[in-house]
Amino acid sequence: MKVGILGASGYVGGELLRLLLRHPKVEIGLATSRRYAGEFTYRVHPNLRGWTKLKFSPFNLSRITDACDFLFIATPHGVSSNFMPQIIETGMKVIDTSADFRLKNSKDYVKWYGWEHKCPELLGKSIYGLPELHREEIKKAHLVACPGCMATAAILALAPVVKHEDIEKNRIIIDFKVGSSGGGSHPSMASHHPEHFNIVRPYKPVGHRHTAEIEQELSFISGKKISVAMSAHAVNMVRGILATCHLFLTNIPSVIDIWRIYRQFYQDEPFIRIVRDVKGIFRYPDPKVLVGSNFCDIGFEVDEDNSRLVLLSALDNLVKGAAGTAIQDMNLMNGWDEKEGLWEAGLHPA
Amino acid sequence: MKVGILGASGYVGGELLRLLLRHPKVEIGLATSRRYAGEFTYRVHPNLRGWTKLKFSPFNLSRITDACDFLFIATPHGVSSNFMPQIIETGMKVIDTSADFRLKNSKDYVKWYGWEHKCPELLGKSIYGLPELHREEIKKAHLVACPGCMATAAILALAPVVKHEDIEKNRIIIDFKVGSSGGGSHPSMASHHPEHFNIVRPYKPVGHRHTAEIEQELSFISGKKISVAMSAHAVNMVRGILATCHLFLTNIPSVIDIWRIYRQFYQDEPFIRIVRDVKGIFRYPDPKVLVGSNFCDIGFEVDEDNSRLVLLSALDNLVKGAAGTAIQDMNLMNGWDEKEGLWEAGLHPA
Amino acid sequence: MKVGILGASGYVGGELLRLLLRHPKVEIGLATSRRYAGEFTYRVHPNLRGWTKLKFSPFNLSRITDACDFLFIATPHGVSSNFMPQIIETGMKVIDTSADFRLKNSKDYVKWYGWEHKCPELLGKSIYGLPELHREEIKKAHLVACPGCMATAAILALAPVVKHEDIEKNRIIIDFKVGSSGGGSHPSMASHHPEHFNIVRPYKPVGHRHTAEIEQELSFISGKKISVAMSAHAVNMVRGILATCHLFLTNIPSVIDIWRIYRQFYQDEPFIRIVRDVKGIFRYPDPKVLVGSNFCDIGFEVDEDNSRLVLLSALDNLVKGAAGTAIQDMNLMNGWDEKEGLWEAGLHPA
Amino acid sequence: MKVGILGASGYVGGELLRLLLRHPKVEIGLATSRRYAGEFTYRVHPNLRGWTKLKFSPFNLSRITDACDFLFIATPHGVSSNFMPQIIETGMKVIDTSADFRLKNSKDYVKWYGWEHKCPELLGKSIYGLPELHREEIKKAHLVACPGCMATAAILALAPVVKHEDIEKNRIIIDFKVGSSGGGSHPSMASHHPEHFNIVRPYKPVGHRHTAEIEQELSFISGKKISVAMSAHAVNMVRGILATCHLFLTNIPSVIDIWRIYRQFYQDEPFIRIVRDVKGIFRYPDPKVLVGSNFCDIGFEVDEDNSRLVLLSALDNLVKGAAGTAIQDMNLMNGWDEKEGLWEAGLHPA
Repeated sequence: MKVGILGASGYVGGELLRLLLRHPKVEIGLATSRRYAGEFTYRVHPNLRGWTKLKFSPFNLSRITDACDFLFIATPHGVSSNFMPQIIETGMKVIDTSADFRLKNSKDYVKWYGWEHKCPELLGKSIYGLPELHREEIKKAHLVACPGCMATAAILALAPVVKHEDIEKNRIIIDFKVGSSGGGSHPSMASHHPEHFNIVRPYKPVGHRHTAEIEQELSFISGKKISVAMSAHAVNMVRGILATCHLFLTNIPSVIDIWRIYRQFYQDEPFIRIVRDVKGIFRYPDPKVLVGSNFCDIGFEVDEDNSRLVLLSALDNLVKGAAGTAIQDMNLMNGWDEKEGLWEAGLHPA
Repeated sequence: MKVGILGASGYVGGELLRLLLRHPKVEIGLATSRRYAGEFTYRVHPNLRGWTKLKFSPFNLSRITDACDFLFIATPHGVSSNFMPQIIETGMKVIDTSADFRLKNSKDYVKWYGWEHKCPELLGKSIYGLPELHREEIKKAHLVACPGCMATAAILALAPVVKHEDIEKNRIIIDFKVGSSGGGSHPSMASHHPEHFNIVRPYKPVGHRHTAEIEQELSFISGKKISVAMSAHAVNMVRGILATCHLFLTNIPSVIDIWRIYRQFYQDEPFIRIVRDVKGIFRYPDPKVLVGSNFCDIGFEVDEDNSRLVLLSALDNLVKGAAGTAIQDMNLMNGWDEKEGLWEAGLHPA
Repeated sequence: MKVGILGASGYVGGELLRLLLRHPKVEIGLATSRRYAGEFTYRVHPNLRGWTKLKFSPFNLSRITDACDFLFIATPHGVSSNFMPQIIETGMKVIDTSADFRLKNSKDYVKWYGWEHKCPELLGKSIYGLPELHREEIKKAHLVACPGCMATAAILALAPVVKHEDIEKNRIIIDFKVGSSGGGSHPSMASHHPEHFNIVRPYKPVGHRHTAEIEQELSFISGKKISVAMSAHAVNMVRGILATCHLFLTNIPSVIDIWRIYRQFYQDEPFIRIVRDVKGIFRYPDPKVLVGSNFCDIGFEVDEDNSRLVLLSALDNLVKGAAGTAIQDMNLMNGWDEKEGLWEAGLHPA
Repeated sequence: MKVGILGASGYVGGELLRLLLRHPKVEIGLATSRRYAGEFTYRVHPNLRGWTKLKFSPFNLSRITDACDFLFIATPHGVSSNFMPQIIETGMKVIDTSADFRLKNSKDYVKWYGWEHKCPELLGKSIYGLPELHREEIKKAHLVACPGCMATAAILALAPVVKHEDIEKNRIIIDFKVGSSGGGSHPSMASHHPEHFNIVRPYKPVGHRHTAEIEQELSFISGKKISVAMSAHAVNMVRGILATCHLFLTNIPSVIDIWRIYRQFYQDEPFIRIVRDVKGIFRYPDPKVLVGSNFCDIGFEVDEDNSRLVLLSALDNLVKGAAGTAIQDMNLMNGWDEKEGLWEAGLHPA
């Protein structure tokens, strides 16, 4: 199957290239970039040198159907909704890693992104591409919206417990720690190495956009309106997200009960690992050991003194937080083994 | 005045040496170390090469009164309570940077540290050495217990608001991000560079010992029992702590009201800066710009959607979180300008 | 084929596990560790959680032949020479990633390692396992000594030019920059994160042990006695080596001539990439983009003012510098495709 | 004395501000910035928050003489030579941290910087502001050109030995490792944190501009034409330079002889430390322990096998490599204690 990538010069595009080049069932037919059209892809993604002679193409809708049978979109937020109807019309299946088709309620785009959605009629047809929640729908989908990286970490941590009655549903805090690649590939003063090295920068203490999709999905699971209070911090690493979720409960469950809940919820999931060890130095999830892999590690701890449950989840924001989940979706949409092209351990130490 | 440092080979001891060597009113009479007795101090603290020819002495109580008039203790927790009565008996004033005299209730040592206190009768005489809360008592104290680094960040962030009635007092979360120097100078697998680099490791999601002193001091301020729910994460830097405090309020105040509360509370404090900017990349506190300085930066943000107040505080764990506050205490105890020897900006970029 | 790993709890052992677990032609029969015998391997190598239930075995020579058909040794230098004759006697093929069988001249062990070799008779039978130089011998070998990580970087950079007459053969300088994983998995004061972070530490300005094998191999290629002047620096990263080789020439060749030499020398090599670009930010080799991959990137620059040739080579010290080359050797020894299990791009950004 | 800083929003300008704000003999009359005119200086240099209410001024030559008595210039290369004659004419003393007045031979600007010098007549009047070489001239100078950061490290390492007859004068290699702040405060793809983190990037293997001033000064000291072969690498830290100089000698001197040469050459220098220890982990110079200080640490090692002398020098590129040396020069030009405002130890650990 020939796949195309729109917006292939960004970090999600680059990770799609890396992963698709080693995927046994696809070949890459097209990789577009406005900035780098005509350049070898390995100039922008130097890890691909010697792997591919592919050059970036300019963005040209009419050539897409010629060049590929399946499309990934990795353009910035607000771009794909300009041309998605035309793509859908061709019958091509699409996975969009931008936010443009994640939210069901078109008003949420005004509130969280600041723009009116161009094709709200497609929002109802788009599937939120988190396999752990929507596997069966993804299999049949034509348009899949790949979840946000922080949203993935948060939803996967909270999904198993969020419907429990004892949780105080308006007291859910998610404190994120995020690597610099999450900010994308455009340099700025904030991302300048001398300014970004060594930081613990609270770059979005309130009002982060991923709130919208986290609340949408958690409300969907629990059947009730869930609101989450996010704070996002940038830390001194390139890849990785840790989400620390703090929940208060009217009755705090035992450790064994929580184990059971998570084991049952994720028992057949290939890319979820429950990490809670009594020995060693990696007793809880840590993005460090997930670099390059598609796992989301989830752990927890009980704070009896405060009737608090602490949930921890870690992932590589470019893999399980973007390109990896997108490929997992592609595998599902094509009836392939879900792990195809993704079954890799992280690196340690790195 | 001749000062001595017990336990001078650790990181707090080293920072005391650095700061005291440039303090115009003191000279260093003694620096003990069991591990390094007989060695030049600059072998362990290489930044002091060319600054001092001082060697580490063995620990010997009887020599302390000969060698110095004022004592800093920077030994590990559980050490100084073995000999503190003998030191106090000599009439020497002491600042202890370990936890041994921070808690008023001797039972808290059993609960949080796991040992019976050896001289509980001194706990009532010890002053919790946070100048911003106990300045007048510190001036008259003979025994000052220097606060823990994370406790300092948390208490300074929360003190101005904790007595407000609208705060839900059993829903206070403090999510810490801590540099590696906070773990002390003894190497271990957990601190091995290949294992510690690039981490966001939730090393103490619940049950951190500093809870005890934070609750003690916040309860003291508010006049009510306050409990806090701490989680501590190690991040990829050497110096620095960021505390992100999440509070829920029944009525969320305006930004202007909160500004007023913090300005009033800290208006005469030389080492507290309120950081909340609308421009630039350092809009909130960040430990990055505090390395080497005695400032604690405090900021905040209001989350109306969740009736949440986010408080942020940052400091250098070895300066304002330990040696700097200890010297601030020494200045107060001796009637000197509180800023003496401490009035330095941090480094940027670094 | 069942493979065993002796000394599997170190970083090279962990990387062998990671790579062999995904190798289609082998399964792991045994992984020994003195320190961690009885523990799950994923406790020490947390990236392998969910990948294998394998536990470390104690070291027991008699069990090795039962448990496996092919052996990797990743014990510290000076260990394997104690028992290698017994292993060779069983007829099992062995790849040793330690230094014990790299040097042909037993006196070099006394000079560089400080011990008398226990079985010097095996030195002549051991093959230096650098496929780019000794492919045909490796195919037939029973005992292969996997090159040192820095030696690999240096030899691959210098091999194509070292026989050129114009090079001043006693003025070859190799200035190394090395990540912390190269120092192994045992924590020490030198590797303690607060002490190792942010360093550019000249840890071995002269007299590095890899000098011996670099000189041995370069002399072998050039047919003349080559000596190299090494200096090794530790830098603030976990994986990776950059070797900067400075050579003086009596007649400085043109860039085009050097291109030709390198292209010809390495034209059929799957894991060597010549990196010398006129555009972009990765114009020369950089270990950053090689993390996790088996490539060695080689570049060069001509300094006409000083009749100097600067050669640059970069690799991941745990992959091409150890476990990757070892598996490349295993593939050759078994007649398999040399790239089997190793054909992965590095990560970018990471 | 009122001092002005032209180009105060860059990193050298920021460091001048930090150091001058704590200098007991000066106050800051003016700090210009084209980009940030009208902004508070602490918005760009967040470490100065609470230290100064100073705002950036626009660049306006006529206001300079009103606002200050002494001038620092920290503009990019090629700027100050446009207006220097007018400033000199006012009689004001000037220290220029850019390259515009470092080189004596105006042709070197064409060769190394690519532009014709606008006022070559001033080159002969400018003093190369390295106190260790030109102290007496600096005291009397009106125009001082502060040396380049890498040049300072190299010249201070080489000066004591470069006139020795045994050194092969056309085989001097200097291999630099440089922190990211050396690249200035303008963000670019190369400095983007995801691209710059974890690198050992050979960004200038040959042809670095500092070659010109290093050769100029070393030739001046030795009385012979000296050429140096530089290679510059960017590494994963913000502040700091390590220069590793490799020299070949026809007769290799003993360690004791080299000690004597360096001790004698630098015996009265307040900011030079000879670092060569037999114990501990900081046996050689390392920029890590120099962050924020004005020291240049120098060490060496003898490689008898190769008749090679390895010289190592480390400094903080923004202090001893720029702003610190500039202030040292100012102190000399005004007859003050050379150490005034500069006598600070580095931080450890940091």
